[in-house]
Amino acid sequence: MLSRNQVKHIRSLKQKKFREIHHQFLAEGSKLVSELLESSFKVINIYALTDWLKHNESQVLSKEVTFLEVSGEEMERISALSSPSPALAIAEIPIMPTPPTVINDLVLILDDIKDPGNLGTIIRIADWFGIESVICSGNTVDLYNPKVIQATMGSILRVRVTYANLSDFLSSLDPTIKVYGSFPKGENVYSIKLESKGIIIIGSESSGISPEIISNVTDKISIPSFAKASGVRDHAESLNASIAAAIICSEFRRRKG
Amino acid sequence: MLSRNQVKHIRSLKQKKFREIHHQFLAEGSKLVSELLESSFKVINIYALTDWLKHNESQVLSKEVTFLEVSGEEMERISALSSPSPALAIAEIPIMPTPPTVINDLVLILDDIKDPGNLGTIIRIADWFGIESVICSGNTVDLYNPKVIQATMGSILRVRVTYANLSDFLSSLDPTIKVYGSFPKGENVYSIKLESKGIIIIGSESSGISPEIISNVTDKISIPSFAKASGVRDHAESLNASIAAAIICSEFRRRKG
Repeated sequence: MLSRNQVKHIRSLKQKKFREIHHQFLAEGSKLVSELLESSFKVINIYALTDWLKHNESQVLSKEVTFLEVSGEEMERISALSSPSPALAIAEIPIMPTPPTVINDLVLILDDIKDPGNLGTIIRIADWFGIESVICSGNTVDLYNPKVIQATMGSILRVRVTYANLSDFLSSLDPTIKVYGSFPKGENVYSIKLESKGIIIIGSESSGISPEIISNVTDKISIPSFAKASGVRDHAESLNASIAAAIICSEFRRRKG
Repeated sequence: MLSRNQVKHIRSLKQKKFREIHHQFLAEGSKLVSELLESSFKVINIYALTDWLKHNESQVLSKEVTFLEVSGEEMERISALSSPSPALAIAEIPIMPTPPTVINDLVLILDDIKDPGNLGTIIRIADWFGIESVICSGNTVDLYNPKVIQATMGSILRVRVTYANLSDFLSSLDPTIKVYGSFPKGENVYSIKLESKGIIIIGSESSGISPEIISNVTDKISIPSFAKASGVRDHAESLNASIAAAIICSEFRRRKG
């Protein structure tokens, strides 16, 4: 049975403040917890339903991790999900990787992405398209927010995500490296020349790319709309940040493929 | 001041059951409410903060709509958003359009999309790419769910969304019309021939395209992963449904553009 202190500790990790104090985060879901155990992340505790523990017994026993069987009701009390899963893990927040110094491939930069679902989804997109490094501005939502972890669907275990001062990072780059940024009046992403290595900046949901780093952008790109706009019938003003990231990454990789 | 009955009625519209009884839905946000007033939708009531009403006075007065000034606290009580906006409208749910009988362009079919954010985002994508018709299976989340409305960012006013029995609809089509569906082992979407008109089926988040309509698919497509998979380093198993929809629509339109 869960103690009051355990419940309190687990719940506290939904807040960034306590994640920073304890250097711990929550990961939920049968598949994610199982993948986490096989990863380089240090898992500290597992709380799981009887069936899950039985099914994953050998995996759990092979690792240095304490585990506790909990009831469905107890899981509901500790879960950050609207529909609780059969397994929840507490893992250690690893040391933040440093931003890459040499750019040999595509690197994604996220400039103040605020929505946890967007951050998680973009990390999943990076994983799919083999983009190994994602660099977030200091004002981007916390990577270890449970909603971010959830939306990555395990990709957080494979993509190097770090936080940095974007202006400093961009200024430190070899000046021959292309820096692509999306702007409403940028060049058509389908026809502009795209290098197979470089930086892609995704601006924030509400205000796009920050003024401080606009001068670092070497190539302004845009995803053209195909709406049949007329006087009455206007069209969508923009795409969601994660949707734009997906289409741009897809277009870069298509050319390479 | 809001009456208890008004609060009760507005809040009830967060539930599908009451939306169906009253044929009404909620729309929130300064821009959305303003766009709604200019659209063919019938707006019944507007609840807004003083400043919003002042700023939009001529627009509101020019329409046959009752409006009420509410305080910030009252808005918090009636809003379905985590951060309430300055304006909320109740509008009439229009008669559902019929599915298109002649296919002259791309049509999106959504097969049991369950997440409101995904449905809203896909409607926004359709709007951006000039796809005028979206047909949802009966088990797709309700179009008038406040989270769907929110995620469409106004595109709900421009895209024809309808619900239908997908198997019946697909079987009724001219057999020369191509039906594209995404499958893990489909042909590379970047290299397969894509017609400029046809049907694109987006499968559900958890189980892809339903068995009942698989036989209607004429062209199985897939978005290739570019992850450098190795024994240890696996990669994302799939993309989110709205991300896949975006990349596929982008690829169709790019070819046409």
